[in-house]
Amino acid sequence: MATLAELAQLVQGEVHGDPTIQISRVASIDRAAEGDITFVANPKYLPHLKGCRASAVIVAPGVDVSERHVIVTANPYLAFAKVLSFLHRGTRAAAGVMPGAQVAASASIDATATIHPGCVVGEAVVVGARTILHSGVCLYDDVVIGADCCLHANVVVRESCRLGDRVILQPSAVIGSDGFGFAPAGTGYFKIPQVGIVVIEDDVEIGANSCVDRATLGETRVRRGTKVDNLVQIGHNVDIGEDCIIVAQVGFAGSTRIGKHCTFGGQAAVAGHLKVGDNVTIGARGGVSGDLEAPYQVLSGLPLMPHKEWLRSTMTLPKLPDMRKDVLQLKKRVDELEALLKEDGRA
Amino acid sequence: MATLAELAQLVQGEVHGDPTIQISRVASIDRAAEGDITFVANPKYLPHLKGCRASAVIVAPGVDVSERHVIVTANPYLAFAKVLSFLHRGTRAAAGVMPGAQVAASASIDATATIHPGCVVGEAVVVGARTILHSGVCLYDDVVIGADCCLHANVVVRESCRLGDRVILQPSAVIGSDGFGFAPAGTGYFKIPQVGIVVIEDDVEIGANSCVDRATLGETRVRRGTKVDNLVQIGHNVDIGEDCIIVAQVGFAGSTRIGKHCTFGGQAAVAGHLKVGDNVTIGARGGVSGDLEAPYQVLSGLPLMPHKEWLRSTMTLPKLPDMRKDVLQLKKRVDELEALLKEDGRA
Amino acid sequence: MATLAELAQLVQGEVHGDPTIQISRVASIDRAAEGDITFVANPKYLPHLKGCRASAVIVAPGVDVSERHVIVTANPYLAFAKVLSFLHRGTRAAAGVMPGAQVAASASIDATATIHPGCVVGEAVVVGARTILHSGVCLYDDVVIGADCCLHANVVVRESCRLGDRVILQPSAVIGSDGFGFAPAGTGYFKIPQVGIVVIEDDVEIGANSCVDRATLGETRVRRGTKVDNLVQIGHNVDIGEDCIIVAQVGFAGSTRIGKHCTFGGQAAVAGHLKVGDNVTIGARGGVSGDLEAPYQVLSGLPLMPHKEWLRSTMTLPKLPDMRKDVLQLKKRVDELEALLKEDGRA
Repeated sequence: MATLAELAQLVQGEVHGDPTIQISRVASIDRAAEGDITFVANPKYLPHLKGCRASAVIVAPGVDVSERHVIVTANPYLAFAKVLSFLHRGTRAAAGVMPGAQVAASASIDATATIHPGCVVGEAVVVGARTILHSGVCLYDDVVIGADCCLHANVVVRESCRLGDRVILQPSAVIGSDGFGFAPAGTGYFKIPQVGIVVIEDDVEIGANSCVDRATLGETRVRRGTKVDNLVQIGHNVDIGEDCIIVAQVGFAGSTRIGKHCTFGGQAAVAGHLKVGDNVTIGARGGVSGDLEAPYQVLSGLPLMPHKEWLRSTMTLPKLPDMRKDVLQLKKRVDELEALLKEDGRA
Repeated sequence: MATLAELAQLVQGEVHGDPTIQISRVASIDRAAEGDITFVANPKYLPHLKGCRASAVIVAPGVDVSERHVIVTANPYLAFAKVLSFLHRGTRAAAGVMPGAQVAASASIDATATIHPGCVVGEAVVVGARTILHSGVCLYDDVVIGADCCLHANVVVRESCRLGDRVILQPSAVIGSDGFGFAPAGTGYFKIPQVGIVVIEDDVEIGANSCVDRATLGETRVRRGTKVDNLVQIGHNVDIGEDCIIVAQVGFAGSTRIGKHCTFGGQAAVAGHLKVGDNVTIGARGGVSGDLEAPYQVLSGLPLMPHKEWLRSTMTLPKLPDMRKDVLQLKKRVDELEALLKEDGRA
Repeated sequence: MATLAELAQLVQGEVHGDPTIQISRVASIDRAAEGDITFVANPKYLPHLKGCRASAVIVAPGVDVSERHVIVTANPYLAFAKVLSFLHRGTRAAAGVMPGAQVAASASIDATATIHPGCVVGEAVVVGARTILHSGVCLYDDVVIGADCCLHANVVVRESCRLGDRVILQPSAVIGSDGFGFAPAGTGYFKIPQVGIVVIEDDVEIGANSCVDRATLGETRVRRGTKVDNLVQIGHNVDIGEDCIIVAQVGFAGSTRIGKHCTFGGQAAVAGHLKVGDNVTIGARGGVSGDLEAPYQVLSGLPLMPHKEWLRSTMTLPKLPDMRKDVLQLKKRVDELEALLKEDGRA
């Protein structure tokens, strides 16, 4: 619960209307009720405000909502996120190791951390201040976790891997599984031990059931601020730059290096041992099979092409059977023309 | 163990042959032995009956199997499923909370439910009659689960999510992980709290290691009777209609709405904020990038096309390099023809 | 710690230089320090040896590294793997069932096996010699596991499934989830019980969050020596041959049979009820939609084509819009030529 004035201050916005009204909840424009605040980040949703029962609205400058109580701010979407964080602060369980958790004697757990029942924490593990391990989290020996992290239920972090501060791991994410490396030996394979680690830097989030494999030697690294969705595969010795956005079901093969601020659409993939520069955007299901060192490229498809070319190219696909017929017919017609002229003694 | 007559009654079929023979097991046509019943749903497998040692066979009307004991029924495949369910009823562990499970004092567990060791059940959780939680299941606070559900080992259901009756979750499925939402803020991102829930309606099944993300606001919903295979991603605020079939490794981006009785082949994907009508079928690896409101479409490919067109179009792909050569050659030949006629003073 | 001579003996190589130097660690060529051994499997990395601080190097015969201490061996990559295994032997927890693990009274656990806290082992389970179950592993009733296996944290093996010797399951892998089978019944579906099992043979490795579904009847089988990466889906009744390599995010639909020594690149897929012969290689994201009985094929794409044809075909894709324009223009030009000749009284 907060007044409109308090929320405006939180998001560095300006109140138009009554600053004293009480707001208890954030709601979407079509479901908001009395006491709720909603937001309009995209002008095309402005007409939906008619009939919306929210007590207040977050809008961008220049929007005409004179009959309403509003917070005006340059970035309504960010303001919405901040108000939502503020009003929906969850309560957290009390600090401490709960009964039913198993913590090795040599582990060092900050007194303000919370370890839920069913967790298993190995030898020499370090867990930082205010970090929460939900039920069933398993930390192998020598794992180091920073402050203010949240590891959701059934997450596994294998031996010696390191997490920075404010890292969020969604349920069943796996950090530090063995990289996929085998040396051919006769008709079979000899497993190459994966003795490196994974480093997850500050402010990274990893989605549910995603996997980050440990390095063969050295480390696999996901750098500060990068957000990874569900069911993503990050192979051994991969290095992903800061502030990347990696949508669900993407795969990175081993030893690939990704720059800063890159975006990968759902089900995209990158082959192994490649370099991708900064600010590169790969569309959904794009397949990166060569180095992409130039920054600010927007590419799609397999093979990759500039996104607009890809759109044009794929729109041609349904026309291929007709094109093929056309080409065969053209060959026949040109054959005839040539024959005609030859007959005519001219070619 | 049942007589052929009892099984025929179960599937509303008709016995030809000896109704008193005892059947103890269902087996495939190539592995069946004395005491087994098998079935023929597809007439092309009828020749395999020769040499099959099954004591009885489930067949469709009009099939000539005069020398055998059979159950004749309009839908042999459904009858097979029903007989299999009947003969292979597993025994279940006794009701109650087993030692080694952790259940919050405020949780309400039906006396007929079974909670295996290693489960952790949060505050105010409700678990309905005869529901089974296998080992390592974690239910966050305020989860509500109906009757006759089966949650396999290491499933996670996060706070406030709701499951109907007869829901089956395969091992390590994750319900209620945070949706993937971040507001750009400077060069990085600000996490948008995901304060909505997931609702899984009656008779839904969700596969192993599949993920259903909670809504940002409101709810993500999988409606009655829908079956979801393994490793599927269902994004925040998605709404999937009744009786859909979603094969492994499919992905749905956020806020998309899918109609009833739709089918998605393996590795298919649907972009965000789209609407798909009822009875739409998307082939394996099809990519939905626009609304598909008309019902009963059968589409494949990326871009999507009617399935038959897609087959024709993809069959052209291997011929593209030759087509390209043909077109270049045609240009040259037409150039020559034009030059010839021009020279001739005619063009 | 070992002398160069000891390591040479291990890999059946030959020492050039000082056989008595002590080696304590394996490191990559760019990170190696005093006391480390590194390797050069690919001649293109030989120049990197200049400036490399490793005490010794594993190389192939004929490489000129006269100023260094080296082990010469026909297969440096395999030798690297063996030396790495030898020098980085992890210590393992003591044998026995640790406090906080739940083992049914009827289970048979070899005295040399290790069961970590948080494991749940069902009735009549058998666990072989020196096998390790990490925390949170759940074995349903009647599971049989051989010797020298390693099941990482939160792995689930459902009822009656069988693992051979030296099987490795990465964290959260699921063995024996229900196959995806439903019989249409009215407008909905009737679940077909999946009463078969999964058999994982000797020396198989299954990646993190991968799923192997149990058979409807009979068994799903992954044969000796096959290596499966993360997030792979193996459907019910699939049979995968010996010594296959299956990269991340691949999917196999039900009842498909794969031969020996096959390789599947990342995100590839195989439709149901197909047969793939021995030594077949499918490129990343290749889609197998028909039988491939001939051995030693190397195929890519959807539809599949010989890999080299696929490369040529996909390189044509960006040129399609121009090709289409060319064809339209050619039609017009040929129309004009034909008209001209007709007018001329010749056609």
